[in-house]
Amino acid sequence: MPVNNAKQWRAKFERLRANKAFELLVISIIVFSALVIGVKTYPLSPTAFRIIVILDWAITIFFLTEISVRFIGEPNKKRFFYNGWNVFDTLIVLVSLIPIEDSEMALVGRLVRIFRVLRMVSIVPELRRLMNSLLAALPQLGYVALMMFIIFYIYAAVGSTFFETVNPELWGDITISMLTLFRVMTFEDWTDVMYETMTVYPLSWTFYLSFIFLSAFAFLNMIIGIVVNTLEAEFQREAEEAAEEAGEPTLRELRDEIRGLRVLLQKTQGG
Amino acid sequence: MPVNNAKQWRAKFERLRANKAFELLVISIIVFSALVIGVKTYPLSPTAFRIIVILDWAITIFFLTEISVRFIGEPNKKRFFYNGWNVFDTLIVLVSLIPIEDSEMALVGRLVRIFRVLRMVSIVPELRRLMNSLLAALPQLGYVALMMFIIFYIYAAVGSTFFETVNPELWGDITISMLTLFRVMTFEDWTDVMYETMTVYPLSWTFYLSFIFLSAFAFLNMIIGIVVNTLEAEFQREAEEAAEEAGEPTLRELRDEIRGLRVLLQKTQGG
Amino acid sequence: MPVNNAKQWRAKFERLRANKAFELLVISIIVFSALVIGVKTYPLSPTAFRIIVILDWAITIFFLTEISVRFIGEPNKKRFFYNGWNVFDTLIVLVSLIPIEDSEMALVGRLVRIFRVLRMVSIVPELRRLMNSLLAALPQLGYVALMMFIIFYIYAAVGSTFFETVNPELWGDITISMLTLFRVMTFEDWTDVMYETMTVYPLSWTFYLSFIFLSAFAFLNMIIGIVVNTLEAEFQREAEEAAEEAGEPTLRELRDEIRGLRVLLQKTQGG
Amino acid sequence: MPVNNAKQWRAKFERLRANKAFELLVISIIVFSALVIGVKTYPLSPTAFRIIVILDWAITIFFLTEISVRFIGEPNKKRFFYNGWNVFDTLIVLVSLIPIEDSEMALVGRLVRIFRVLRMVSIVPELRRLMNSLLAALPQLGYVALMMFIIFYIYAAVGSTFFETVNPELWGDITISMLTLFRVMTFEDWTDVMYETMTVYPLSWTFYLSFIFLSAFAFLNMIIGIVVNTLEAEFQREAEEAAEEAGEPTLRELRDEIRGLRVLLQKTQGG
Repeated sequence: MPVNNAKQWRAKFERLRANKAFELLVISIIVFSALVIGVKTYPLSPTAFRIIVILDWAITIFFLTEISVRFIGEPNKKRFFYNGWNVFDTLIVLVSLIPIEDSEMALVGRLVRIFRVLRMVSIVPELRRLMNSLLAALPQLGYVALMMFIIFYIYAAVGSTFFETVNPELWGDITISMLTLFRVMTFEDWTDVMYETMTVYPLSWTFYLSFIFLSAFAFLNMIIGIVVNTLEAEFQREAEEAAEEAGEPTLRELRDEIRGLRVLLQKTQGG
Repeated sequence: MPVNNAKQWRAKFERLRANKAFELLVISIIVFSALVIGVKTYPLSPTAFRIIVILDWAITIFFLTEISVRFIGEPNKKRFFYNGWNVFDTLIVLVSLIPIEDSEMALVGRLVRIFRVLRMVSIVPELRRLMNSLLAALPQLGYVALMMFIIFYIYAAVGSTFFETVNPELWGDITISMLTLFRVMTFEDWTDVMYETMTVYPLSWTFYLSFIFLSAFAFLNMIIGIVVNTLEAEFQREAEEAAEEAGEPTLRELRDEIRGLRVLLQKTQGG
Repeated sequence: MPVNNAKQWRAKFERLRANKAFELLVISIIVFSALVIGVKTYPLSPTAFRIIVILDWAITIFFLTEISVRFIGEPNKKRFFYNGWNVFDTLIVLVSLIPIEDSEMALVGRLVRIFRVLRMVSIVPELRRLMNSLLAALPQLGYVALMMFIIFYIYAAVGSTFFETVNPELWGDITISMLTLFRVMTFEDWTDVMYETMTVYPLSWTFYLSFIFLSAFAFLNMIIGIVVNTLEAEFQREAEEAAEEAGEPTLRELRDEIRGLRVLLQKTQGG
Repeated sequence: MPVNNAKQWRAKFERLRANKAFELLVISIIVFSALVIGVKTYPLSPTAFRIIVILDWAITIFFLTEISVRFIGEPNKKRFFYNGWNVFDTLIVLVSLIPIEDSEMALVGRLVRIFRVLRMVSIVPELRRLMNSLLAALPQLGYVALMMFIIFYIYAAVGSTFFETVNPELWGDITISMLTLFRVMTFEDWTDVMYETMTVYPLSWTFYLSFIFLSAFAFLNMIIGIVVNTLEAEFQREAEEAAEEAGEPTLRELRDEIRGLRVLLQKTQGG
């Protein structure tokens, strides 16, 4: 019975998937592949290079096997691809299978091999949780990020209008100007940029100072917003937990108990 | 009946103003005008430049129409100008109507066109709310900002008294000295400034270090102050909301209930 | 009666001291003296310089009069000097009275005149309160500051032991090394310092990285400590205020009320 | 009786250990040894150098005596070495006893003498407590630190793959690339690094900007995480303290009291 056989295989793979030792093996292979990537950046003898290439292929084949195990072991095939991390893992493995020879594509191949290290995040649950919480914090940034982009855009437009003649390399067009403004925001040699334009426009320090204050102020508000939101969510979660754990009654329940007493008393009186 | 006619028009415009599709159109025109401003900073062929000029005029006319619609659609004309954003929008549109030819004023004209991007803030409600909350945080800074100005002023006066002979470009007068001190505060090549004066006044590092500690300390206190204020306001707002939502009684109400019981009991005893 | 006369004078001065208009006059004279100090840092014509000198003396005399008024107006002469700000004001005024001619002392004289601007803090109540709260935050820093000093001292000793031969200007002795480490801590061209020592000691990047991590970590803990303390103090103050305002009973009071009921009930039963 | 004698000695030493004056003496000797270390970094006359060497030995002997006193004074010898600080102190003292002549080892000897300053932390209780709280905050950083290392590793691999030909000194292999990325993260002349690679890969600014945003975002989350954890722990500790101090009953206890009343009432009714 081939169907029964397939079922047995699936069950076997399902057990393998959930196996802690298997997970540990996968993690060590990922760490090993990261080391291989690191070693490749050093100058290598031809022999060492050949060994690395073979190791690379061995890792790719291991990852292919692992993905297959996880796919076959999944009872519901559709659900497998609902998980973003599974899709990411499958893509990385599939792309590394494509044999690439010409130098242009070789770089892409190396890039894909580097991104294998990210599989670390997909396999260690704590890192996956951390990544999710990082991603969950992103939407909060939405409108403040838009506001900052508007500030950058306006200052970049003003900057490239006035300062293009002073230094076209820094203020040539609006994209370069935004890069220059980002540099000013990180305080990276910003006075060099300022002193240069001050020789032509002596009052241009107002441009830089107002930009620094505005962007710092918006940035600060963004951070404070995140801190306040995180604190609130945390305290609320905790308050709920505490209430559940201790079986602590609410004030409303207490009031209802007292009112019950009153009804009893009134009955006594009436009786 | 022209009066009736005008009323009909106003009602039509009022509906148009509140229309979501109209708002979306205005937003896309603003984004488009921002793109036009960005494109203008790149070197353009004469044809492209002529197209840009025409687009510029088209945008100006669209904005003029939009402001008119919003003004006519407003039932209470006075209230229209009570809103700072409306005044801002009207000014921007009116100034872009003035035809400017000579090169000096042309720059002003370009600046006004750039500030049109700010209309994004006035039209997207979330950005307007964010801007208002940013402005609301400003007064909290008042006295700390004054304190920091005093610190800057005193150090700038000391700096230009002692270091003017060392480097007049950095310490020439009190304004330049304050700019130099701001540079020191952002840690931008501050050791270059310090090493220079240390060749003449070997102990001048005390001047820089005390300034850095003082300003960093005042700055930190400012930030902590804002964080604490924001957190407080947030928690208070939330506590009030929670209390209202749940219909939770206060401890005082509970006490009054218990005292009511006691009166009842005493009556029973007395009876 | 000279005694009575003196009393009358004192009462007059006491009223003058508390007068809002007098306070405003003093503030404007302080602002004016700050402007005079600022103007002096610009190149001046001899006439302007002579005017400034006269203004300087006028300000000194005004401050002398003001201090005298405040001293005579104080009912309890001893208490006058218990206030640190009064002592500060008196010292500033007395030192500006000493006529100084030779160039060495002239600088000190100018410094004293600059410190007059600090009188702004002593006269505006909000700034005085802010200054007091800044000073109150200092003791919290005590042991963390000592810890950071120990970190700096150890790293400076190690640095000047190993790197003195590499660059005596940066690592000559322990004082210069500490200054260099402060520079590294502010990330000011710290890689220049590191690359230089890495040519001799290739592993010296561990020295810099461990120092940056340690000092950043200690610094962060300091800030977090202050934030937590400030938040706590604030919330406690507020909770107490809220409790007082609303006349809210504590849970303990509620329990005592309930126990009182139980006694009453038991009496009823007994009866 | 030698046993009795030893006991007497131990008791004497135990008293000495707990003596405040003895502690103060030890602290001043540590401060003095720190000063000696500082003085050694200055150029010294041969006589001064000889005095320093003698002082060094005197300090070593004092520390040896002090450790012995503390060891003999400890009733439970095993517990002495359970304390990490005692082990640290003993090691420092023992290593300084080894006479070292050749220049290689002399540096190690000097290093050990510098680490004596750390004994300050082991002897002042407040510093020891601070150190412990610093160490307690470390595990919280665990997974975020791992995440940041993965980000650094991937970007370093990408950087050394693409940019090695541009500047092998900054991007030669993965270790150097990680150091360069740390430099970029501290904003130290990061534009110089970027402009250099942009001449070959004009789009490489995306590499730097995405790295800065990612690492800044992860770093921010780390800090916010620590702040939230610290605040929570603090508030919880305080809430517990408050509850204990005031003998404040919990809401659950109040409910139980009310239910007790109900039982009593029902008995009354029944009776």
